Parts: sequence; C-alpha cells; structure tokens
Amino acid sequence: MSEKPPTDGQAPQPSAAPRSRLSFLVTPHGWPYLLVPAIPLAIVLELTHASASLVFATSALGVIPTAALMGRATEEVAAQSGPGIGGLLNVTFGNAPELIIALFALQAGLHEVVKASIIGSILGNILLVMGAAMLAGGLTGGRKTQHFDRTAANVQSLMLFLAVAALVMPAVFELVEGQGLPGIDQERVSFDSTVENLSLAVAIVLIVSYGLGLIFSLRTHSDIFNPDYEEADDTYGWSIRTAVIALAVAGIAVGAMSEILVGSIEAASESIGLSEFFIGVIVVAIVGNAAEHWVAVLVAVKNKMDLSVNIAIGSSAQVALFVAPVLVITSFFLGPGPMPLVFNGFEIAAIVLGVLVAYQVTNEGESNWFEGVQLLALYVILGLTFFYA
Amino acid sequence: MSEKPPTDGQAPQPSAAPRSRLSFLVTPHGWPYLLVPAIPLAIVLELTHASASLVFATSALGVIPTAALMGRATEEVAAQSGPGIGGLLNVTFGNAPELIIALFALQAGLHEVVKASIIGSILGNILLVMGAAMLAGGLTGGRKTQHFDRTAANVQSLMLFLAVAALVMPAVFELVEGQGLPGIDQERVSFDSTVENLSLAVAIVLIVSYGLGLIFSLRTHSDIFNPDYEEADDTYGWSIRTAVIALAVAGIAVGAMSEILVGSIEAASESIGLSEFFIGVIVVAIVGNAAEHWVAVLVAVKNKMDLSVNIAIGSSAQVALFVAPVLVITSFFLGPGPMPLVFNGFEIAAIVLGVLVAYQVTNEGESNWFEGVQLLALYVILGLTFFYA
Amino acid sequence: MSEKPPTDGQAPQPSAAPRSRLSFLVTPHGWPYLLVPAIPLAIVLELTHASASLVFATSALGVIPTAALMGRATEEVAAQSGPGIGGLLNVTFGNAPELIIALFALQAGLHEVVKASIIGSILGNILLVMGAAMLAGGLTGGRKTQHFDRTAANVQSLMLFLAVAALVMPAVFELVEGQGLPGIDQERVSFDSTVENLSLAVAIVLIVSYGLGLIFSLRTHSDIFNPDYEEADDTYGWSIRTAVIALAVAGIAVGAMSEILVGSIEAASESIGLSEFFIGVIVVAIVGNAAEHWVAVLVAVKNKMDLSVNIAIGSSAQVALFVAPVLVITSFFLGPGPMPLVFNGFEIAAIVLGVLVAYQVTNEGESNWFEGVQLLALYVILGLTFFYA
Repeated sequence: MSEKPPTDGQAPQPSAAPRSRLSFLVTPHGWPYLLVPAIPLAIVLELTHASASLVFATSALGVIPTAALMGRATEEVAAQSGPGIGGLLNVTFGNAPELIIALFALQAGLHEVVKASIIGSILGNILLVMGAAMLAGGLTGGRKTQHFDRTAANVQSLMLFLAVAALVMPAVFELVEGQGLPGIDQERVSFDSTVENLSLAVAIVLIVSYGLGLIFSLRTHSDIFNPDYEEADDTYGWSIRTAVIALAVAGIAVGAMSEILVGSIEAASESIGLSEFFIGVIVVAIVGNAAEHWVAVLVAVKNKMDLSVNIAIGSSAQVALFVAPVLVITSFFLGPGPMPLVFNGFEIAAIVLGVLVAYQVTNEGESNWFEGVQLLALYVILGLTFFYA
Repeated sequence: MSEKPPTDGQAPQPSAAPRSRLSFLVTPHGWPYLLVPAIPLAIVLELTHASASLVFATSALGVIPTAALMGRATEEVAAQSGPGIGGLLNVTFGNAPELIIALFALQAGLHEVVKASIIGSILGNILLVMGAAMLAGGLTGGRKTQHFDRTAANVQSLMLFLAVAALVMPAVFELVEGQGLPGIDQERVSFDSTVENLSLAVAIVLIVSYGLGLIFSLRTHSDIFNPDYEEADDTYGWSIRTAVIALAVAGIAVGAMSEILVGSIEAASESIGLSEFFIGVIVVAIVGNAAEHWVAVLVAVKNKMDLSVNIAIGSSAQVALFVAPVLVITSFFLGPGPMPLVFNGFEIAAIVLGVLVAYQVTNEGESNWFEGVQLLALYVILGLTFFYA
Repeated sequence: MSEKPPTDGQAPQPSAAPRSRLSFLVTPHGWPYLLVPAIPLAIVLELTHASASLVFATSALGVIPTAALMGRATEEVAAQSGPGIGGLLNVTFGNAPELIIALFALQAGLHEVVKASIIGSILGNILLVMGAAMLAGGLTGGRKTQHFDRTAANVQSLMLFLAVAALVMPAVFELVEGQGLPGIDQERVSFDSTVENLSLAVAIVLIVSYGLGLIFSLRTHSDIFNPDYEEADDTYGWSIRTAVIALAVAGIAVGAMSEILVGSIEAASESIGLSEFFIGVIVVAIVGNAAEHWVAVLVAVKNKMDLSVNIAIGSSAQVALFVAPVLVITSFFLGPGPMPLVFNGFEIAAIVLGVLVAYQVTNEGESNWFEGVQLLALYVILGLTFFYA
C-alpha cells in the first residue's frame, strides 16, 4: 500500500488497454496516498503519548488515504457485482469512513462532536465541494456555463429539505418545551426521554424514506441518475477477492485512525484553542470526505457536472437520511446514552441556510464560476462564525 | 340520505346518459356516506352524556359525510350558476366545513385549538393530501412522471408564502417585545391589545389580497386555472332548489356535529391523553377536509395532476388567506375575546418547513411517487413532534 | 437647478436629434425636481431651530431631488466613460445617496437607524419597488404576463441569499452566546469584541464576493446583464466637465440634507411618535432610493422587465453586499464605535421572508399584476409590524 509509484512501471492507459491494478496511484485520484506515511506516524505518536495536537493532526491526515482506499475498494467490489447490487454497495459504503469515525466518537460519548460532524459533512458537501467544483469547472475549458440534469438534483435537494425538517423539529421541541438548545462548549447534554423517543421515531422515518429513495434511484427511476456514473471512477480490474481484502484492510485502517483521532480530540481542542464544536464541524467533516470531494472537483473540470452535482448533493442527502439516523439508533446501544437529534443554534441556522442555497443553485440546472464563489463565500462565513463561537 | 345504494337501481353511467341524482353515492366519491350512521350515534351519545372520547370519536366521524354533502351541494349550485358565480361559490364554500367547526371552537374560547386547526389544515393539504396524490398517481397507470402546470401552482404557492409571512410576523412581535409564544397546554392566552390590533390589520391585508386573487384567478387569468375543473366532480343534475335545500341541510348537520365535537374536545383530550393541540392540528384538520382530500387523490390516479395540485395547494392558500383572517376578525365579536395570530413554536416551524417544501415540489411542474413519499414522511415527522409535544 | 421648464424652449426629442441638457427635467424622470424647494426650506428651518418634525419632513423630501441629480450625473459620467468603467461607475455610485445618509447616521452613533435603513432598503427594493413595477407593468399595455431573463435575476437573487446568511449569522451568534438581540428602542448597543470581529470578517468576505460579482457581471458574463441598460435612462449629452461638477454639487447637497435629516431623527421620532426603528426601516430607506425606484416602475410599464427586475434585485444585492459591509468597516473609524451586523428580530424575520419571496417571484422569469399585489401586501404586512413595534 505504501509503495508508489507502481512497481510494474506501466503508465495508466486511457481506457482500452487493461490497466495495472495499482496504476490508480499515479492518476489524479492518487494524491491521497501521499499521506500514507501519516498512518504509522499517528500510531507511533499515539503509543509514545506525544502531544495531543500532533496525534490529532497526524491521525486526521491518516484518515484521508484510508478513506480513499476504502472508496476505491468499494468501487471495485461494486464493479464486479452488476449494476443493481453494485449501485447499492457504492451508495451504502460511500459514507462508511464518516460513519466509522462517528461511531468511535459516539462510543467515547462525544455527542456534540458527532452532531457537529453530521452538519459539517452536509455543509462541506453542498458548499465547499459543490462550490469548488463550480468554480474550477466554470474557470476551465473556456466555458461560460455548465449544465446538469435538474431532475436528479431536485430529488436529492428535496431529500435534504426533508432531512432539515427532521433535524430541526427535535430542536424546536426543546426550545418550546423549555430546556433550550445545547451550548457550544458542552460535550454531551442529557435530554429527557421524550426528546430521545422523538429523535428515535424521526430517525426511523428518515431511514425508511432513505430505503424508498434507493428503490427510486436504483430501480424505478435509475435512468435519471447519472447514466455515466461508471465513467466517474474508472475501475482497475481488481478481482473480487483483492477488492474484498482491500476493503477489509481499509476498514481496519479507518477504524484505527478514527480511534486515535477521537481519543485526541478533547486534549487537542484545549491545546490548539479550537472548540470541539469547530473541530467536529470543520476538521472531522472534511477528512472523512476528502478523497470523494476531490473526485467531485475533478469531474467538474472535465465538464461532467451531472456527476459532480450528484456526488455533492447526493452525499449530503445520504449523510442526512442514512448516517445521521443510524448514529441516533446506534446511540441507544453504544456509548453513554442516547443521542437525540438536538442541534445547537449555529448548526440549525447553518443547515437551513445551506440547504436553501443548495436548492437555489441546483434548481436552475446550470452553473458558472461566480456561483461557485458564492457557495465558497457562504462556507467561509459559516466557518468564521463557528470559529468565533 | 342514509339510503344507499340508490333505490332507483340504476348504475351510474360514464357521462352521456343522464345520471340519477343519488348515483354519486355509489361512485368512488360515495364512501364518506358510509359514515352517516355516526351522525345519529354522536347525537345519542351526546344526549346520554356518554364518555367524552366516544362522543368525540363519533362526532369527528360524523363531520365527514356532512362535509361531503356540503361539497356536493356546492358543486351542484355552482353548476347551475354559470362559470363566474359558480367559480366564486365553489371557492368560497370550499372550506365552509372547516370554517364552521372553527367558529364553534372560537365561540367556546378554544383559541389554541382553532389556531392549531388552521395550521393543521394547511399542512394536511400540502403534505398529506398532495403527498398521497403524488404517491398514488405515481404508482398507478405505469407512469414515471406526472406533469402539471407550474404557473397556477406557483401563484398559489406564492400566496402561501405571503400567508406564512403574515402568520409569522405577530409571533415575531411577541418574541421580540418579550411576552413569548403561547405554550402547548394552554387553551387561550390573553395578549395585549397591540398584537391584537396588529393581527387585525394583517388579517385585513390578507383578505384584500385574497379578494384580488379571486379576480385574478376567476377573471383576468382564469385560463391558467384548471380548464378541466368541471370534469373534477361531475355534477349529477340537481335542480337549484334541491341543491340549495341540500346545502342548508348539510350546513345544519355540519353545525350540529361541530358543536358536539367542540364540546367534547376538552374532556376527550384528557381521557385519551392527547393534547388539545394535537387534536386541533391533526384530527380536527383532517375530518373537515376528508372528502375533498379524497377527490385530490382520485384525480391524481386519473392523471389529472393539474386539478389535484390545484385542490391541495389552492385549498391551503384559501385557509391561510381567507379562513384564518375571517376567524381573527370574527373573534373580535364572537367568544371570550380577540384571537391574535400568534402561533406556537411548533406551528411556526412546521408551516415554514411545509410551505418551503410545497414550493420546491410544485416548482418543477412534475411529480413522481418518491416525491409523494417525502411529503408524507415530512407529515409523519411533524405529526410525531406534535404527538410528543 | 431650480429653473424648470428648461429655458431653451426645446421639447425633448425621442432619441435621434440631440436633446437639451436640461430637458430631462420635463420627462417622466423629472418629478423629483419638483421637490427642490424643500432643500432651502429644510436649511432655513434647521437654522431657525424649527420643530424637529418639520425639519425632518422637509429634509427627507429634500434628499429626493439631490439623490435624483446624483443618479443623473452618474449616468452622464458613465456614458462618457465607455461600457467597462461606465458600468463600474454606475454600479458603485448607484447607492451613493443611501451610503451618504448612513455615514452621517453612523457618525451620530445612530447604529440602530443605520441597520434599519440597510434592511429597509433591501426590503423596499424587492417588495415595494418590484411589487409596484409588476403591478403597474401587468395592468398596462393589455398584457397578461411580462417576461424577463431568469439567469441574471437568479444570480442576483443568490447574492441576496448569501447576504442574508451573512446578516443573520452574527445575530445567531448573539442569540446562542447569550447576549440576545438588540431591542427596538435602543439607539446603540455595545457588543463584545468577538461579535465585532466576526462582523468585520464577514463584511470583508461580502466585499470580496461583491468585487468578484462585478468582474462576473461587467466582464466574464456581461452579456446576460441587460443588453439594453443604456436605453434605461437615456443620457442627455452632458460634457464630462458638466457631469462631474453636477456630481460634486449633488454630493454636497445630499450630504447637507443627510446631516439635517440625521440630526432631526431623534427629536422627530419623539414628537411624531414613530420609533427610530420605523423611521430608519421605512422613511430613510425610501427617500434615498425614490428616484431610482421610480425608474424601475417606469420601465416596467414600458415592458422592459429585464431592466426593471435588474434595478430592484440588483440594487438590493448591492446594498447587502457593498453598502452594509462598507458601513461596518467604516464604523471602526467613524462615530462612537464599531457597529456589528447584529440585527433585531423584526429585521431578521423580514429579510429572510423578503428574500425567499423575491427568489420565488424572480425564479419563474415571468410576472403578472397579482404577483405585484402580493409583494406589496407583504411590504404592507411588514410595515404594519414595524409600525406597532
């Protein structure tokens, strides 16, 4: 895994000719693997009880290549499984790294970090990734406007609206019934059982709705969802055995990095002077998605905006409708106690604004560089607010 | 009225041949009349001072056939009155049952129930009815997508936005000026006269705007509003005399059922263990509209989405811009005192989310089954929150 | 400046023939100059220490012709400067009168008036002006619908969304961190330095974004922004010297009127019985824009909706992304202390509702008279709420 460039000395061929199984390392998708050295470094620093900031920084960087390998292995397994199961695998494992990090944080009782990373992941996808994609895509290739299919974008954007409603109502409950929203500096708030039950019920509705959405996008209306998805990440012909082994290795590596990362958050937060909230909503949210984000920008430059928008909005919708409810349900069994979906005021304002802007931007079915600038500007404004919080 | 199937033994003819005046009872529109036995039952239970829950349940069911008859009689009167006056009658009497129930509740001083039923009626139309229509319409007839006219839907959706602003600003007033929003368990809050005057002024603006909207939809731009409205509910050739008598009978019956229903709410709320808020926002809101709701789903299955969306969104807009302000103005004369438009936090969050989603769904001018699922999912999420409130 | 009709006795020619440099006074654009007598009157009343209400009223009226002359002179300078620089001049000086009034208010420490006038200016443009334009345009010329380019409107509408986010987040900060929002009756609130720094950072992001927006609209995508802008305000062939002198004179006159106006606000507010908030959000916001507003209505009647919508939405976007951040930055050097972008509850609710409605109305790319009615109705509802506040 740490050897690169590939030893077989063969350059990656533009389609046609069979490519080496390791040639992906030298494609534009290969950069995350430059961070592989961060993995053993994080482990050594953790074992030698180095400063929390260093452990945090190296493990955060170490997540990136493991998540990238996980994505690659998923693609390869999916490619061997035919469109139906393959699509399902791709979608389900697409946010696996984020889920793994969040599960470790859940176990450690860092509820506010988990919730912050859910919101941060949604915002990162629709503002940072889609913004960078529209900016890069709009400035290259001498094009004025890029076009994409409104219908697919709108379906996913509607899913985000639904999710926002689900993510906001328990907070409204807390506001009206008088307990107020969690503060920024808290690690975990104990809510009464009513709002825990409400969150559980809402989570189940979201997951059922997500499952029906899979039937919709993979079955009844699969034609409107990226006919050229397979072009996105060209696969490299791994055997199913290689791919499954790689998936397992990647899963273990993500887990190891996540455990180290989560274990260092508290101390690192204090020594760097950033709130756990900021770390969750910006840093954790970015590292779990970095490789995937890169792909979205790359395909935008290639003018495949359908795919780029689909990755950004689709990934957000998945976090909101799948990852978030899974974490709520899991919290009833794992860690110190249930984690209801009660977000703080910053998270609620940010997610409402972000989703409204995402809707407006995708609704037209076209984009230009200045739309990218505006999405990025909103991300910066939200980030500044989170920083000062 | 209670005899069915019709005694003349003639099956309803698909158009062409003249149909019996009672044949509507055996059409798909006829099911509400199966609930006619609930009417005498409710009266008997009320007179014998039976348990409040039973009185509540039977009178709630009893509202449904009386509202259905009222709708049928309105259609027949309208059909005899030519397009202009007929359209006006249809629109004005369209929400008469809801208005009658609310007036009885207003008289009984149940302000929070009245306001809950206003919000519940709007939400029920745009989420439950439109959701069911899009789901049923999208799953039948082997179609992938259903289309409808964006322009008409957008005009009504804009009316809803306007209404939301009007329904939210008095609450903002209370929040900023420091008295806070009404709680869930209150029956009636006494506000100071400033917010009462503000509500009255806002109500007048809404009604004037509604009146101009009638001129718009019935006069200057009548062509974009459902050219095939008359196909919706085929009429059954009642004479004007029969229709007016039926309208009067239905009005009295709705009134009787409403009085019994409203009288039982308080005690029923306690014995069933549901809050008056939940009863108002879900139960009362549904029974007054059940027959109309059914029509919206039925025409969606027949692929007349223009009409279906028009019933759902149009009915919401009417409740917001006509029923709500009429109730505010009436409250200055009827019942214990003025009812300002100050909604609680749940109602405000729900109506804002609902109207945003309605806009997004109708803006495209097309629908599919999964959009229906999402609207229903949002209704369930809101309902769960209201239940736990 | 006070002589009218023009002394050269020549009627304004419909294009072609060269027109008198003063002939604009007798065009439909000439009405603001009827208010010229208010200028000396305001000065005399101020010097004689007349009642604050009279000083306020006359200086408010006096602002209108000076702002109109400033607009005219800007157009003439721009016309002499070629499309690139000319466009930049037009855009930059377009809101100069508002900026000048606000700077005087800033110096006087009337922070709440300044912030109210920012919000009022945005609302006035998208609700009052666009509403009046769509109503007047839709009722004249026997047309049912008016069309305009969606793309340009959407870009500016997205800028407004971005601005709303920026204007809302510091308030969210204050709400979450516990200091609460400013009240209605306050003149100036002292915030802690964190929210001041946050506002400064957000202001810088907005200005950078605004600058990139100029490059977008004047350079890379200038074709989608009003090819017929120059037709808007026909120019009258002023020499660059005349135009610059007129600009200077107008600037001094706007400054003089602004100083008198601002100096009288406090006392006038008390004696008229209107809050300073209401004066800022309605009165000050209208007078600085009156001439420009008139143009937007006039071109709508001429069925140039592209231009009309561009003036309304574009002007709002400019206030939000340029005037507001310039005022925040200036407040660090001018007046009693920094003015963070923390708006009160009314302002936040109003701006969010206003921008959502503006988006919905412009998103379709067409308008009719009833949409105008609804925008105006929302303005009235907001105005009523502000009045009772």
